[in-house]
Amino acid sequence: MNAERFADRRRRALEAAEEAGLAGLLVTPGADLAYLAGYAPLPLERLTLLGLSSGRDPFLVVPALERPAAEAVPGVEGLELIDWRDGQSPYETVAGLIRAGRFAITDQTWSSHLLALGQATEDCMFVAVGRALPLLRAVKDPEELELLRAAGQAADATFADVVDLAFAGRRESDVAGDLDRLLRERGHDRVDFTIVGSGPNAASPHHEAGERTIEAGDAVVMDFGGVRQGYCSDITRTVFVGEPDEEKRNVYEVVSAAQQAAFEAVRPGALAQDVDRAARAVITEAGYGERFVHRTGHGIGLEVHEPPYIVEGDETVLLQGMTFSDEPGIYLPRRFGVRIEDQVAVTAEGAERLNGASREVTVVS
Amino acid sequence: MNAERFADRRRRALEAAEEAGLAGLLVTPGADLAYLAGYAPLPLERLTLLGLSSGRDPFLVVPALERPAAEAVPGVEGLELIDWRDGQSPYETVAGLIRAGRFAITDQTWSSHLLALGQATEDCMFVAVGRALPLLRAVKDPEELELLRAAGQAADATFADVVDLAFAGRRESDVAGDLDRLLRERGHDRVDFTIVGSGPNAASPHHEAGERTIEAGDAVVMDFGGVRQGYCSDITRTVFVGEPDEEKRNVYEVVSAAQQAAFEAVRPGALAQDVDRAARAVITEAGYGERFVHRTGHGIGLEVHEPPYIVEGDETVLLQGMTFSDEPGIYLPRRFGVRIEDQVAVTAEGAERLNGASREVTVVS
Repeated sequence: MNAERFADRRRRALEAAEEAGLAGLLVTPGADLAYLAGYAPLPLERLTLLGLSSGRDPFLVVPALERPAAEAVPGVEGLELIDWRDGQSPYETVAGLIRAGRFAITDQTWSSHLLALGQATEDCMFVAVGRALPLLRAVKDPEELELLRAAGQAADATFADVVDLAFAGRRESDVAGDLDRLLRERGHDRVDFTIVGSGPNAASPHHEAGERTIEAGDAVVMDFGGVRQGYCSDITRTVFVGEPDEEKRNVYEVVSAAQQAAFEAVRPGALAQDVDRAARAVITEAGYGERFVHRTGHGIGLEVHEPPYIVEGDETVLLQGMTFSDEPGIYLPRRFGVRIEDQVAVTAEGAERLNGASREVTVVS
Repeated sequence: MNAERFADRRRRALEAAEEAGLAGLLVTPGADLAYLAGYAPLPLERLTLLGLSSGRDPFLVVPALERPAAEAVPGVEGLELIDWRDGQSPYETVAGLIRAGRFAITDQTWSSHLLALGQATEDCMFVAVGRALPLLRAVKDPEELELLRAAGQAADATFADVVDLAFAGRRESDVAGDLDRLLRERGHDRVDFTIVGSGPNAASPHHEAGERTIEAGDAVVMDFGGVRQGYCSDITRTVFVGEPDEEKRNVYEVVSAAQQAAFEAVRPGALAQDVDRAARAVITEAGYGERFVHRTGHGIGLEVHEPPYIVEGDETVLLQGMTFSDEPGIYLPRRFGVRIEDQVAVTAEGAERLNGASREVTVVS
């Protein structure tokens, strides 16, 4: 993407901030900085900060030793570059560049940076970007949608590959290793998570992969994803080691129907919480309402979790180009669990799945 | 490590906080939580928070869906576990558990969490742990030192392997891929960085690996590391593609002498800045003072960068068991650069290198 694209995003972000009554945005390494400057240094203890402030040109404060790396980034073109050396205070530098007022700051900015900025500035207030401008990155442009589709397809291919491997007799961590390798082979630049929960572990939604040996009769929840060309994948499928019994099959069908109901609730103008309600209604109707212990989804893009959140109380009006997960689940403590997750995009009239891996009952060996 | 070890660390941490005039500590996912509870969930947007507060038992607030994972962690034993569900406010929960006062909070806590805690609490003030209690994790116990030695040896072995491979004619990113693979083969659970800067790129201290093809005559700075059993490795070596010319050899010898001088300055009772001064004096004496653009080092342990920082102005008194990097460098813009980095530990009377890879001039093909 060229420099003009980033300059345009910065202009729109500052306009949105001003409309929200803010004096500007302070952006530190992570998805916001990648979005607004195409720059992605490690988020460490040395302050790097992009400032978009009313009435002045945008600036980028960087540690001196990272200046050459920053200068080489196309999206940094057009930014006033200001470096600081070890021993100097970058917070005083920033304080000298902004006026009094209320600034939105990147959600993930280290608290130590925020507290030091608070001390260095006078009459500045801070609010989290995710609270003040939650939809800054929510509507994807066509190029971003294409990158999310490609990441989704790479995750789909990983699932198609992994179900041909043996499950019974191997450890969860072995299957997680396979997922890691396959995600990379299918084009991921980075793997972020390879959750494998088998048998009773499948009943713990965020169980990672452990030393448990997978057995015949298990349900196995696999939730995996990473980053391809900057954009995230995130998919969950639940497979059965040998034919599932009637209860497991029933739970699977309920989750699948809930996932489909949520998908059908996605359209421009619907609210984020409407999508959660659609999935929850199906699961509650089937008698498992208390066992669906998490929200239905989260936005996705440069981050694997970003606004909007598909949860009761999130009244974000869905717009064409928004992308988020649809991932209901049912968890029966100490017994088993089922979750099915696709990423979806809001289209002009409805929704598009960004994942195409099979959602049918899948039996592995 | 058993539950008692973590309970003991929590008692000592709260005592240190009280001595510093604080009402307690608020700890979110990352190294502080791993250190105080052995618990390492992904640091995401749902709040997980360990509270150590004067006059009450320690508590751990977790998202409901992560409760089973938290309960399974030995170090969580003895903590009051309080969960919250999507749609509830975990900040109100925390506010109900702590009293008024000044609390240290994890440096890396997301700003969005800190700002929400500030809104939910009354009469609470916050200060970064790294500022209020910078040495919380700085002195390593014998078990931690053993883990850091093992991580260092795995990085050493990676260097010994990589210099046997071809450099000339391959891209920096190819060598970075080799380093990634070798670090894992040598026992790393995670690779965090594989910096490969060749030719003019070696003059940019934080240059990552790019598409530049390495050529005969290049100096190549390789700075790489990751995590083995929770503890970090971080080593830098600069190699030459073919015999270096006199200038390059001279710069290498200056950096090597500076690295040795810093090492010899390490002893209990010395100040962190003394070690920086020792390295800087050698480089300044040789006429390259302006080209040593960063501090001499950073602490290492559960984090790759943690206090103390080996920099002018850091007056931390070095104590036996502290561990940090010794990594001076000289960077000649658009031409070449040299950096040599080992991790070192403060011993009873001096220092121990945690890396043993060769620091002699190394020529690769």
